[in-house]
Amino acid sequence: EFAKLDHHRLLRQGFAEVVFCQGKTLEQVQAIMERLAEYNHSILATRATKQMYDAVKQVVTDARYHELARLITVERQKPPVDKERFILVMSAGTSDIPVAEEAAITAEMMGNEVKRVYDVGVAGIHRLLDQHQLIEQANVLVVVAGMEGALASVIGGLAAKPVIAVPTSIGYGASFGGLAALLSMLNSCAAGVAVVNIDNGFGAGRMASMINHMR
Amino acid sequence: EFAKLDHHRLLRQGFAEVVFCQGKTLEQVQAIMERLAEYNHSILATRATKQMYDAVKQVVTDARYHELARLITVERQKPPVDKERFILVMSAGTSDIPVAEEAAITAEMMGNEVKRVYDVGVAGIHRLLDQHQLIEQANVLVVVAGMEGALASVIGGLAAKPVIAVPTSIGYGASFGGLAALLSMLNSCAAGVAVVNIDNGFGAGRMASMINHMR
Amino acid sequence: EFAKLDHHRLLRQGFAEVVFCQGKTLEQVQAIMERLAEYNHSILATRATKQMYDAVKQVVTDARYHELARLITVERQKPPVDKERFILVMSAGTSDIPVAEEAAITAEMMGNEVKRVYDVGVAGIHRLLDQHQLIEQANVLVVVAGMEGALASVIGGLAAKPVIAVPTSIGYGASFGGLAALLSMLNSCAAGVAVVNIDNGFGAGRMASMINHMR
Amino acid sequence: EFAKLDHHRLLRQGFAEVVFCQGKTLEQVQAIMERLAEYNHSILATRATKQMYDAVKQVVTDARYHELARLITVERQKPPVDKERFILVMSAGTSDIPVAEEAAITAEMMGNEVKRVYDVGVAGIHRLLDQHQLIEQANVLVVVAGMEGALASVIGGLAAKPVIAVPTSIGYGASFGGLAALLSMLNSCAAGVAVVNIDNGFGAGRMASMINHMR
Amino acid sequence: EFAKLDHHRLLRQGFAEVVFCQGKTLEQVQAIMERLAEYNHSILATRATKQMYDAVKQVVTDARYHELARLITVERQKPPVDKERFILVMSAGTSDIPVAEEAAITAEMMGNEVKRVYDVGVAGIHRLLDQHQLIEQANVLVVVAGMEGALASVIGGLAAKPVIAVPTSIGYGASFGGLAALLSMLNSCAAGVAVVNIDNGFGAGRMASMINHMR
Amino acid sequence: EFAKLDHHRLLRQGFAEVVFCQGKTLEQVQAIMERLAEYNHSILATRATKQMYDAVKQVVTDARYHELARLITVERQKPPVDKERFILVMSAGTSDIPVAEEAAITAEMMGNEVKRVYDVGVAGIHRLLDQHQLIEQANVLVVVAGMEGALASVIGGLAAKPVIAVPTSIGYGASFGGLAALLSMLNSCAAGVAVVNIDNGFGAGRMASMINHMR
Amino acid sequence: EFAKLDHHRLLRQGFAEVVFCQGKTLEQVQAIMERLAEYNHSILATRATKQMYDAVKQVVTDARYHELARLITVERQKPPVDKERFILVMSAGTSDIPVAEEAAITAEMMGNEVKRVYDVGVAGIHRLLDQHQLIEQANVLVVVAGMEGALASVIGGLAAKPVIAVPTSIGYGASFGGLAALLSMLNSCAAGVAVVNIDNGFGAGRMASMINHMR
Amino acid sequence: EFAKLDHHRLLRQGFAEVVFCQGKTLEQVQAIMERLAEYNHSILATRATKQMYDAVKQVVTDARYHELARLITVERQKPPVDKERFILVMSAGTSDIPVAEEAAITAEMMGNEVKRVYDVGVAGIHRLLDQHQLIEQANVLVVVAGMEGALASVIGGLAAKPVIAVPTSIGYGASFGGLAALLSMLNSCAAGVAVVNIDNGFGAGRMASMINHMR
Ligand SMILES: Nc1ncnc2c1ncn2[C@@H]1O[C@H](COP(=O)(O)O)[C@@H](O)[C@H]1O
Ligand SMILES: Nc1ncnc2c1ncn2[C@@H]1O[C@H](COP(=O)(O)O)[C@@H](O)[C@H]1O
Ligand SMILES: Nc1ncnc2c1ncn2[C@@H]1O[C@H](COP(=O)(O)O)[C@@H](O)[C@H]1O
Ligand SMILES: Nc1ncnc2c1ncn2[C@@H]1O[C@H](COP(=O)(O)O)[C@@H](O)[C@H]1O
Ligand SMILES: [Mg+2]
Ligand SMILES: [Mg+2]
Ligand SMILES: [Mg+2]
Ligand SMILES: [Mg+2]
Ligand SMILES: [Mg+2]
Ligand SMILES: [Mg+2]
Ligand SMILES: [Mg+2]
Ligand SMILES: [Mg+2]
Repeated sequence: EFAKLDHHRLLRQGFAEVVFCQGKTLEQVQAIMERLAEYNHSILATRATKQMYDAVKQVVTDARYHELARLITVERQKPPVDKERFILVMSAGTSDIPVAEEAAITAEMMGNEVKRVYDVGVAGIHRLLDQHQLIEQANVLVVVAGMEGALASVIGGLAAKPVIAVPTSIGYGASFGGLAALLSMLNSCAAGVAVVNIDNGFGAGRMASMINHMR
Repeated sequence: EFAKLDHHRLLRQGFAEVVFCQGKTLEQVQAIMERLAEYNHSILATRATKQMYDAVKQVVTDARYHELARLITVERQKPPVDKERFILVMSAGTSDIPVAEEAAITAEMMGNEVKRVYDVGVAGIHRLLDQHQLIEQANVLVVVAGMEGALASVIGGLAAKPVIAVPTSIGYGASFGGLAALLSMLNSCAAGVAVVNIDNGFGAGRMASMINHMR
Repeated sequence: EFAKLDHHRLLRQGFAEVVFCQGKTLEQVQAIMERLAEYNHSILATRATKQMYDAVKQVVTDARYHELARLITVERQKPPVDKERFILVMSAGTSDIPVAEEAAITAEMMGNEVKRVYDVGVAGIHRLLDQHQLIEQANVLVVVAGMEGALASVIGGLAAKPVIAVPTSIGYGASFGGLAALLSMLNSCAAGVAVVNIDNGFGAGRMASMINHMR
Repeated sequence: EFAKLDHHRLLRQGFAEVVFCQGKTLEQVQAIMERLAEYNHSILATRATKQMYDAVKQVVTDARYHELARLITVERQKPPVDKERFILVMSAGTSDIPVAEEAAITAEMMGNEVKRVYDVGVAGIHRLLDQHQLIEQANVLVVVAGMEGALASVIGGLAAKPVIAVPTSIGYGASFGGLAALLSMLNSCAAGVAVVNIDNGFGAGRMASMINHMR
Repeated sequence: EFAKLDHHRLLRQGFAEVVFCQGKTLEQVQAIMERLAEYNHSILATRATKQMYDAVKQVVTDARYHELARLITVERQKPPVDKERFILVMSAGTSDIPVAEEAAITAEMMGNEVKRVYDVGVAGIHRLLDQHQLIEQANVLVVVAGMEGALASVIGGLAAKPVIAVPTSIGYGASFGGLAALLSMLNSCAAGVAVVNIDNGFGAGRMASMINHMR
Repeated sequence: EFAKLDHHRLLRQGFAEVVFCQGKTLEQVQAIMERLAEYNHSILATRATKQMYDAVKQVVTDARYHELARLITVERQKPPVDKERFILVMSAGTSDIPVAEEAAITAEMMGNEVKRVYDVGVAGIHRLLDQHQLIEQANVLVVVAGMEGALASVIGGLAAKPVIAVPTSIGYGASFGGLAALLSMLNSCAAGVAVVNIDNGFGAGRMASMINHMR
Repeated sequence: EFAKLDHHRLLRQGFAEVVFCQGKTLEQVQAIMERLAEYNHSILATRATKQMYDAVKQVVTDARYHELARLITVERQKPPVDKERFILVMSAGTSDIPVAEEAAITAEMMGNEVKRVYDVGVAGIHRLLDQHQLIEQANVLVVVAGMEGALASVIGGLAAKPVIAVPTSIGYGASFGGLAALLSMLNSCAAGVAVVNIDNGFGAGRMASMINHMR
Repeated sequence: EFAKLDHHRLLRQGFAEVVFCQGKTLEQVQAIMERLAEYNHSILATRATKQMYDAVKQVVTDARYHELARLITVERQKPPVDKERFILVMSAGTSDIPVAEEAAITAEMMGNEVKRVYDVGVAGIHRLLDQHQLIEQANVLVVVAGMEGALASVIGGLAAKPVIAVPTSIGYGASFGGLAALLSMLNSCAAGVAVVNIDNGFGAGRMASMINHMR
């Protein structure tokens, strides 16, 4: 038995176990998704290849694939959404969009209104300041940035609401696979910023959703 | 002019600029605190030595010093507190308490009810499971741990509310000044966990407060 | 002469030299296995590709291939096994199974009863606590985990018997190829935990076998 | 309440909770030791300064201090010891002795016969080969080495019994605080070697004791 | 003979050899400064302690000490300065001022008009935008920042002139002695930014001066 | 909308936004280049594959591809060039030429006279000294080197003008992807050297151009 | 002109410039080898692919390829060799042989008698001690080892002659691409050991040859 | 018994065991030196404090202390020295002299003629080229440099004899305790350079002596 599904998780934490596809065989992903689909109306699998999706599709016919975000989703019943309290997902560059989309779709799956503002890195700060109103209105913010990751600090200083920072592996040389952005975000001189793993759009979306649901 | 105080911050983010004392001279800390005390009823300075406090005390007579947490606080008017929605600050070991206290006092200063559960590291998991109810009732959780930092993942799996994880530099050898706990927390297999800098109790307390105030 | 086989090892340490296939040519692996098969009834080769196995199969016809575990084995005579004293091999996730299987098969080859419990990571701790009895009955434990590797500390705190911890390279971003799990395990706040190299299932299986054979 | 003692540990794992003194105040160490001394006949505190010992001595009058090993011990009733099955603690250099003693005394406290062989680093391998008989007779081996830590691999190749390797921070420059020895030991080409944290003599002694008590 | 002075440097590069005091004995610093003072009218020594200055003062009576910047200077003849083309030295925090001053005084010594704007970190970006005019008028910019070093990217995006970025070791935890700020600055998504060593105010001042003198 | 072009940049900084192609899809690169080509007469895209160029060529018919340098350029109107003030681009080895060309072509695009001297690493210092005159005449220098990156320090000591150092990832083993050259250049004992990211020829060319245009 | 050959090197250092093929195009390698072949009777190119060799072969017809060692050699006139003074090249494992051969062939090209002893890692120290006589007779020793690299220290302690240690990237996990072996060798507790870059068989062979030719 | 002296070493390797004082107690250093002094006429202890020397002086009255080099030496009978074959010890800066002296005195103790050339770093390359003749005449070279360590590559390119490179911890910031110089030297593009540990003057002197004695 290669997987012990945590069927209790939906009750305990409000969403079924999310499948981490990387490092699993096609058969394993297929079987796990099939079992989850029996007990849950919303399921999510991350870091999935197209090939994995094809295998899942055979047994869970209503599964959808989000290519950029590398997500497989099943959504049989839309959760109710409060349109007033939105999560704002921002990316510093166009290349960071796959991770940003992973966060955005995750949050949508979990019943949140999500707005997206992409490609507003700090090198052209006026593009960012143009978004001032959205930043102030957002209930939670997810900031996705590679290279030097400076966007998180700037947003952290502008927003009055919690910022979840996601470093990405976009960059080269001394970005060391996202390390530069990660360290930058951890050392943010703005308070109200917390960080998830490099490229972990899913984790950011999940965290933002939890916060956005607080009453 | 060695300091440009961000007097706007109280309006923008609900709390005055917090002073980072490390690397500042006694004169600088003293002067900055004096100026802040003119315009604000609640002020906070972090990573302050006793000597810095003594200098501040001369000009801001109602300043208090929290030795373990290395904080200087001035609190002229208690903010209203919702006792039902509490922040739970947990530490893995006794040695992590200074950082945990930095988080707890910061959150209290910002108008939150805080409960503390210290020394419940995963090596004796029953101590932790004994706290099950508190973990479920908490509105936000701050988990402070050094060494391998595993506590964050376990709490992340149990709680349905957001967890702010704070790695500490407690440990030796391959803890590399808190790096082991930091990486561990960033790679948490539980979702709903976000991380702040090593030993950054202040940042965790601030973030937890922001989340706890969401309605 | 590209290999000096340590024929003395069987006598000295109770098992023939184990072949590390990575970095060797097909011809080298083939020739080494052929020579070992002349003098030993049990032989083991690790990190072997299917292609290497095909080459070996030609000259050692009773060789078997374990695809997931990337092992080639020859076992002409089963060693006696004490069923009461079993080694428990646990994995945190499904993706860690290849390394766990490398450990389990190694231990079986060396004459041990092995039980497997896979996919019991700490994010759903009840799955783990369900295995409480097995953990208490086990004579030695092998704990295989990637990402933050917290499972080792939790098991180390529950078990009264030695725990061999194996970090895996499963993860991404700040897992840095298994570094996060490795550091986490080395800094375990539970005593009775010792660590082998990242992805070194073989080493863990060998160590567990040595300990399990102590009388 | 700054410490939640794990009183259950003696039952669960055969030895009371061991106190990690680093990062604790004098008062904390004193109070924890006092409470532990009420319920246990053998107690151990690691990484203790002389000053901490003096504070403990006031409330636990039969406490002893081992200066080199930085241990505080209380031993009211010697556990029975099997003299035939001894643990061999080896050090590569004289400078590694403090860590080796931490391991040796820990193991003795836990009811083991311990033999010591110090200063037998691989630079003069005949010194090591002179100890051949002891190495063969030992039931478990603890190998303590700094700098390049090569001793663990050589002993791992000679011994038929489990080797617990302890890297130390002895060295300078590219030893990077013990990292060189740690990596060296983790990559040992000899099987039957598992590693604990840099300078963690306690952990090695505890692990060796667990293994030595197996029947 | 412990020092081979590069007397040719004044001719070759327009300024005499600058003495790096760290790691030198009092006698060495004293003797080197004495010899340099014979041949040059402007001399500079970096990373000098007060004690070193006292020794130098005995033999070079017109030497001055800049405590914050840890510089010893001798300036017998002011170089002509073009007031229109100024170097703007900016710091993110108050704690970064010592490094900023090292840069500013170095540049002044080398015949440049220098303006200073300190404590304008990105957490309160309006403080920074208030300086918009100065940023546009500056001929060269030196940006000094610790923690996450984001200031360099923001200035790099605003200014049309070259930016020399200086990471500082201000910070703690995952700042790793300035590594976070260094990597951040190297990965700046704004072009027109080049970086010098952590805390190297001198190098930044020298580089800025070279650029500012271009015609 | 996946890209917010910074159309203001030409005005603000004298050159249109430069496209970083890595991590973008073919469609994204194509669309961004098409839009930029509408508003600008000179455009530049870096880290572009041949495939990306082919996609761009369809919509921007006068685009050119520089294979070695991995640049796409559009140049409809040559900027005026001052032939007297040239930028000297030097490389240590032949293998560093791609990065050197990225710098050289970038600078040419931005209206600079560029001279190239390649393969003059310090292992044969006479090759370097032969270029003495060019080094003295250059107005700005770009030094591109992998392996140990020593060339930057030697040139920094010879030249009276600013040196922009570019570490490359050329090397193996302990070059750690360019880290060795990067650290070497940051620690240059020659003043007047500033550093850009590993393999960042573009950044060096841009910076050199800014400096070369100073009057 | 992409390459400035150092034709003076033969005179200065006794052997023509050696071509580092990695990162060069086929055309570059071909052209450089052609030019070198005009002026020298012995030439060497390292890290060459088979494809590069095929290109070279077209223009330098007497070139040979050493597949395992990835060397291209041209040797028109054998240098005289002193058979009594031999270089001993040792490898810890079979997988290290490619690097060992790079060293051995390099040394042979430069006029040395070379003996090879491969696969004598420290895990079976008797295999090593069996070579005692050769180790004592050798004039210079090259020790090639991956994983934990302990062989260098053991040989360093046995031999009275200089040892050149070559760490290899053979290993996995915490070998970090050869870092473990590199650090181990640098921290060797035996004196008389100096280290070259990871996988740098060429450098070791060249150094050993220089030492072996001393009179 | 805390030390097993390797009395055989004088016979095996031509010089008695050298004492590494760091991490040893005063009593241990004293006792070890006393025993060594009974059997040897030349003894050497490295990394010794003045206090250690005072303790040794009481029992070995003819011991001498070299403060800068931190060496204790006893030399009762000068070994014969060949004045023609000299070792050239070079340092890049004045601050590197302590390590250079450790190398020089070690080599002198072992019967070598040593010449010293200090403070000839590459920032003023003419100072270095002035020493051209000495560099050509030297039989072995030891190059000691901190910061970027470029001196080793330049000397490696000039000299026809073996170069032993010693990185030092002189520097700050991104020198990371000597790591920058170490990596630089390991990646030297000049062949004929081998490296010892950071600050390991002793190891370099010993290696140079071995090479210098070859006939
Ligand atoms: N302990 C702390 N850790 C991280 N950031 C802090 C800390 N204390 C204050 N800060 C932040 O540091 C900034 C002030 O830095 P400075 O201008 O140097 O006093 C403020 O923006 C605070 O939000
Ligand atoms: N020197 C040591 N190294 C690692 N772990 C230790 C050490 N000493 C005690 N421990 C463990 O640390 C835990 C106690 O931590 P604390 O609650 O902070 O005293 C216990 O579970 C011990 O097993
Ligand atoms: N603070 C500094 N940081 C980096 N390099 C410096 C510094 N101060 C002086 N230098 C350089 O160090 C060299 C002098 O080193 P030394 O011969 O050891 O005094 C000169 O070439 C200076 O350019
Ligand atoms: N495998 C190798 N490792 C290190 N250096 C090498 C290697 N092969 C050649 N070299 C050196 O690289 C330089 C040639 O570099 P390049 O000009 O790029 O061909 C020469 O100085 C050689 O001494
Ligand atoms: Mg963009
Ligand atoms: Mg505790
Ligand atoms: Mg699972
Ligand atoms: Mg010794
Ligand atoms: Mg401030
Ligand atoms: Mg070349
Ligand atoms: Mg072998
Ligand atoms: Mg100097």
